[in-house]
Amino acid sequence: MTWRMAHRADRLDPSTIREVLKLTERPGIISLAGGLPAADTFPVEIVAEATSAVLRASGRQALQYATSEGFPPLREWVADRVSRKGIAAGPDDVLITTGSQQALDLIAKVLVEPGAPVAVESPTYLGALQAFSPYEPSFAEVACDEGGPVPGALQDVGDARLLYLLPTYQNPTGRCLSAQRRQQVAADLGEAGVPLVEDDPYGDLWYDVEPAPPVSALMPGRSVYVGSFSKILAPGLRLGYLVAPPDLYPKLLQAKQAADLHTSGFTQRIVHEVVKDGFLDAHVPTIRADYTRHRDAMAEALTRHLPPGCRWSVPAGGMFFWVELPPGADAAALLPAAVAAGVAFVPGSPFFAGGGHENTLRLSFVTVPPDVIDAGVALLGGVIDGALQPTR
Amino acid sequence: MTWRMAHRADRLDPSTIREVLKLTERPGIISLAGGLPAADTFPVEIVAEATSAVLRASGRQALQYATSEGFPPLREWVADRVSRKGIAAGPDDVLITTGSQQALDLIAKVLVEPGAPVAVESPTYLGALQAFSPYEPSFAEVACDEGGPVPGALQDVGDARLLYLLPTYQNPTGRCLSAQRRQQVAADLGEAGVPLVEDDPYGDLWYDVEPAPPVSALMPGRSVYVGSFSKILAPGLRLGYLVAPPDLYPKLLQAKQAADLHTSGFTQRIVHEVVKDGFLDAHVPTIRADYTRHRDAMAEALTRHLPPGCRWSVPAGGMFFWVELPPGADAAALLPAAVAAGVAFVPGSPFFAGGGHENTLRLSFVTVPPDVIDAGVALLGGVIDGALQPTR
Repeated sequence: MTWRMAHRADRLDPSTIREVLKLTERPGIISLAGGLPAADTFPVEIVAEATSAVLRASGRQALQYATSEGFPPLREWVADRVSRKGIAAGPDDVLITTGSQQALDLIAKVLVEPGAPVAVESPTYLGALQAFSPYEPSFAEVACDEGGPVPGALQDVGDARLLYLLPTYQNPTGRCLSAQRRQQVAADLGEAGVPLVEDDPYGDLWYDVEPAPPVSALMPGRSVYVGSFSKILAPGLRLGYLVAPPDLYPKLLQAKQAADLHTSGFTQRIVHEVVKDGFLDAHVPTIRADYTRHRDAMAEALTRHLPPGCRWSVPAGGMFFWVELPPGADAAALLPAAVAAGVAFVPGSPFFAGGGHENTLRLSFVTVPPDVIDAGVALLGGVIDGALQPTR
Repeated sequence: MTWRMAHRADRLDPSTIREVLKLTERPGIISLAGGLPAADTFPVEIVAEATSAVLRASGRQALQYATSEGFPPLREWVADRVSRKGIAAGPDDVLITTGSQQALDLIAKVLVEPGAPVAVESPTYLGALQAFSPYEPSFAEVACDEGGPVPGALQDVGDARLLYLLPTYQNPTGRCLSAQRRQQVAADLGEAGVPLVEDDPYGDLWYDVEPAPPVSALMPGRSVYVGSFSKILAPGLRLGYLVAPPDLYPKLLQAKQAADLHTSGFTQRIVHEVVKDGFLDAHVPTIRADYTRHRDAMAEALTRHLPPGCRWSVPAGGMFFWVELPPGADAAALLPAAVAAGVAFVPGSPFFAGGGHENTLRLSFVTVPPDVIDAGVALLGGVIDGALQPTR
């Protein structure tokens, strides 16, 4: 055999979501599967104007190699933004990444030791499991309820190198930790001596009341905070960032340099041009208003179309509903019938580090319009109903 | 201590080049250090037009999430381009990466086993050593002469997981393997059962005669070929690619997805818009003509200004001269004096996996104009001359 793979490559698996998304490329499928933002929220004209301005004012610099840390004015902007969320950070603490997914990869490269435990929520973001896995951790699932990690649950993962937490409108569950639960988690982490990696791509997408400040604000020096422009501007630009304390930052920076030298200075300058004068202050509320309608449409559709025995909570933000089918049901087994019927979702089991929970599934409410959401959920309800009563 | 680093993080070191580049940010320094393309070769207007066209025709798709493999038309274009270089490849073999540096990271993630040898040239591209190192290989330096790896040298690295080779206008030496030497290397690799990772960022930058076809053309199925748009279009776009056989590609794709989901579809579409109708066929010759003047200016300047005992070859392409000072000289020790005098270079030792060779240094001839090259080399000659005769 020509190619002898590294041992860690065994931990790279085809993504379930990826395979599902391929199915949903078939025309006519209503996709409630992927976490794609609604494309009509993308400010195409604004990006076009910003690009023209950048190329006119500093075209050669934008197209040249740049520093691994990121474009200094954008780092300043990020530092200011996270500071307003309560995280004490200066521009020197900010590392611009190629999407927040890369931040997770860099963090894992620097902190994840083969065989050593990494604590994750139950369930947790599948993309984080995929980013961490090639670095060969063992995963320690932290017991969670609808409010997040339950008090004291971290006592069982005292040897963990880090807790990966998505506390605000989590992917996949949509749950959001209360201020009290955030304090509890921070205290538990402090007691256990475990640092925090806080992923916050959805924090600005709140539909009812603003969420509590990031957990990182309660843990200065002991947290890496990860953010993204994907959900509030556009994911195709691949721009995210991490904010790390000075005793960790240099290693993350060296990992960044080894991974791709630097993130495109062209896109960094464009995004800075877009956001520098407060564009997001006006833009994000329009996304929130739009997604609130989507969220409400899906809540109504689920109530209307899902058979008895299915459970869900209405998320207060983010992009996802998390549905539990009756015990014994298998969401993955339903997927082919759902796709045949014209609707796609993501089975929930891959979001659990230890698998199981086959009766769960994730639905995105942001990609398709409200009326299509209703039609999709109606199709899904029919498929679930048929599967639960196969002999009817 | 809050942060327990992974063992592999010990292998992440501050980049020598990076530190040097920081020095050269001082105003007035003539930098022959970095590998920055001449910014006046960047087609700013063309990129601006292409961006407008992309945003007009498919703005929402360009700003949306996209497939991990890359933008299909760009993959087709790459497949066609490498096929014309003799590498039998279709679009499905092409993976678009965030610069060619990311291709090296992904390859290492999939193929480099801790402790197992990776064969590299002596010297080799420092960025490749940095990409590979966190995956904890041992490096096996392959004996090289001015023509590349010497015949039979691969017999000593039979257990290597791969040979990393930059056969065409190598960074840092500028050397180019002859057709005969390429056949020899391919035969030696076949005999040793070692696959090839061929890095080819400079292949289009030939100044005298076109180089022999890539070594990968001689090793179908047993090679990964890595290319880049950085040197023929613009590095700030961060676009590269790898071409891999079907029994390796899926793992590289999964590593890509774990690393950053996908490379910006916005920049991919822009670059495709720029190149699709043959722009590079007219553009690259202008870069070649420009860099030929730079190369010739540096060749003359070295002859004029460097003291006796210094050796170099005139590269037939690429971006670098490699200079050997007399034995016993230490290029790194000269750097502070050089920067004080107003010129910067990169010491050669870090390009050797095993260190040593302190009397070598690398000079870039593409970043600054020919007259400035002469001034810079004159300053460098004075510093070297002073160091070689310290008591004068």
